[in-house]
Amino acid sequence: MPRSGEDARRRLQQAALELYSERGFEETTAAQIAARAGLNPRTFFRHYPDKREVLFDGEADLRAALVREVIEAPEDLAPFEVLLGAFRTAARILEDNRPFSEPRLQIIAATPALRERELAKHASIIEALAQALRRRGQNDRLAALAAQTGWATFQAAADAWIEDPSQSLQAHLDQAFDDLHTLSAATRPRVTCPEN
Amino acid sequence: MPRSGEDARRRLQQAALELYSERGFEETTAAQIAARAGLNPRTFFRHYPDKREVLFDGEADLRAALVREVIEAPEDLAPFEVLLGAFRTAARILEDNRPFSEPRLQIIAATPALRERELAKHASIIEALAQALRRRGQNDRLAALAAQTGWATFQAAADAWIEDPSQSLQAHLDQAFDDLHTLSAATRPRVTCPEN
Repeated sequence: MPRSGEDARRRLQQAALELYSERGFEETTAAQIAARAGLNPRTFFRHYPDKREVLFDGEADLRAALVREVIEAPEDLAPFEVLLGAFRTAARILEDNRPFSEPRLQIIAATPALRERELAKHASIIEALAQALRRRGQNDRLAALAAQTGWATFQAAADAWIEDPSQSLQAHLDQAFDDLHTLSAATRPRVTCPEN
Repeated sequence: MPRSGEDARRRLQQAALELYSERGFEETTAAQIAARAGLNPRTFFRHYPDKREVLFDGEADLRAALVREVIEAPEDLAPFEVLLGAFRTAARILEDNRPFSEPRLQIIAATPALRERELAKHASIIEALAQALRRRGQNDRLAALAAQTGWATFQAAADAWIEDPSQSLQAHLDQAFDDLHTLSAATRPRVTCPEN
């Protein structure tokens, strides 16, 4: 479906977000979402299999964008530099779309059924990122570790941004990767400079 | 239920693990698990609400053990030292129980319905670890980041252990935290020693 399908999806997403905020996810039906969007209930199910999926419409695009960034990043970059670059792009998308993305993240965080779906989506993004890093020649173990911990860092930054919107998500992202470095330094013998 | 309840639970877990391995999770019913364990189907549902939960019996204990370790760790330890200590204890439990824990992890990884339940359990462990770190005086942001990335590192180590059992989980765990430090060093300006 070209233009009109896209428009219907956007209206359904906006209507779902409003109704989940106003009366809660459990209290809202797909038919009510369709009505709020000025559409037929059947139209809802033509676009989404259930009332959870309507809030995850952008996840497949996000995953594809992240994978593309990882694969196309300059060859000499280290795994975390590659991931940080990809997350910066994702952060820009979330920030440009803040009136939608902020309440969306809040509702997901507060609703167990949505949180569960989100966790499954994230697991699939982590797997895709690990695979993309392997395509860059990273070994299995490091690719998996970088994807898991890198994504966890991005998530911590997104949570911090929801808590404290006075700073940009980009700023929270840089801060989180800096903090991760400081945290992880503690489990290693300190490197000291030679005295001479 | 004291002794006999514990015995029934152990038999149900073992039977579930066997049947999920032999014929798959979707193909197995709670009644079949009970029969294999030499028990009545009603006994199954007295212990577990569904056939997913039977493989997550130890998760609440694991979470409680991790939280206790974090809270009781020496005051002067940094967050990742505290978490690594707690994960070492968890690793010991998993290793001592390898004949059960290894096929369990394999079945979960291969079964979407179990994987989804596992992700929800992990989210609750991450939240509990973050809370325990906050009780040690860590600020919200760092506590959340350390819990999320620390847990991701533990998971990467557990996955690596399943792939490569020639090394202990403890060894994989130390390796993963070392690797994380190396990975995260790349996103920071390098600290160089002053020349004199």
